[in-house]
Amino acid sequence: MNSNFPDPNVPKAVVSRLSLYLRELQQLLRVGNDTISSSKLGRRLGVTDTQVRKDFAYFGQFGYPGIGYRCEELIEQIRKILGTDRTWPVALVGCGNLGQALLGYRGFGKQGFKVDAAFDIDPQIVGESYEGLKVQHLQHLPAVAEAHDIKLAILAVPASAANQAVDVLVQAGITGILNFAPVTLNLPKAISVVGVDLAMELEQLAFAVVKQVNK
Amino acid sequence: MNSNFPDPNVPKAVVSRLSLYLRELQQLLRVGNDTISSSKLGRRLGVTDTQVRKDFAYFGQFGYPGIGYRCEELIEQIRKILGTDRTWPVALVGCGNLGQALLGYRGFGKQGFKVDAAFDIDPQIVGESYEGLKVQHLQHLPAVAEAHDIKLAILAVPASAANQAVDVLVQAGITGILNFAPVTLNLPKAISVVGVDLAMELEQLAFAVVKQVNK
Repeated sequence: MNSNFPDPNVPKAVVSRLSLYLRELQQLLRVGNDTISSSKLGRRLGVTDTQVRKDFAYFGQFGYPGIGYRCEELIEQIRKILGTDRTWPVALVGCGNLGQALLGYRGFGKQGFKVDAAFDIDPQIVGESYEGLKVQHLQHLPAVAEAHDIKLAILAVPASAANQAVDVLVQAGITGILNFAPVTLNLPKAISVVGVDLAMELEQLAFAVVKQVNK
Repeated sequence: MNSNFPDPNVPKAVVSRLSLYLRELQQLLRVGNDTISSSKLGRRLGVTDTQVRKDFAYFGQFGYPGIGYRCEELIEQIRKILGTDRTWPVALVGCGNLGQALLGYRGFGKQGFKVDAAFDIDPQIVGESYEGLKVQHLQHLPAVAEAHDIKLAILAVPASAANQAVDVLVQAGITGILNFAPVTLNLPKAISVVGVDLAMELEQLAFAVVKQVNK
């Protein structure tokens, strides 16, 4: 994952870990834990308790002496920090195989994201409906983004179409892009990009398999 | 990302960071840096230099006094640890929209993974070719996996088909699964699973956008 964040004071790895803490806390709550100590939370993620406390200290004071963190409260705080204490409308740009697959992806809704509008430029795709959403021509993105206050976009177009699409995203006032296109985007600094690197997940598996073979 | 690693001694977060270190080192090398200190490498990822040294200490001694790490050498060492110093043949199970999109994903090849065989059970898809690969019926997976020594699989089937597919994966001797199906898999402990959580990437963007609005 490569990101460029507007605020250099909070390292991107700290923000990444907020997502990981959030998932662990959601899991802990599901199995009936109301509180957790920084050292136990850290152990679950392979970081020291000092690192856990340092990470949260960027944003405030969330622990209780002798108790640790209250899971439900900390979940709320992290969602507030991340900005996912509300639902974000998201524009999907590119409705080929990947785009259609992402439209059906249920993990977004659970964490506060809703794909509200879908766009393409292919006349064979524009006008089609997928998962109950009608694909519009990309030229309508600026008007739709303004009407629905859409700030986030998922870019799922071929590499060759990426920078043309980006021009429209910029014009539409999109400020965050989740980029699946295997290409570096030419963007103004004010726009944040996260590139999806699926090979990283495979590396983690390779490690696990190698360890097993060597046992 | 949820993983269950066979070795409890190396925390999964440490292995995750190996992938992040690897990407940073590859980037550093591309822009002409031959060496880097643990504190500079840590700063790029928002972890302390102690954490960097502690992470690598699980696997050996890689730094040089007064020099730091030699990028090219450390890249080789990390790939060796992760097991990606060779190319892994991967089986793709599920060739619908997501599967086809993944077949076209170029990030895998760059990091040592090659989708060598593709499977489905849908008679409309079996026999079709995508990205030069002919889709075979899932029942052939055990034979193909044995012939090609395939240990890793990408599972890109609908939730309803996931556990049926898993039975075949187990039978085929697959030991690592990258799971895109939005469901918890019932697996023997010896099989490692990494679930892809794309919402995490969106959270990182939401944070960046919220920060910008609050500036």
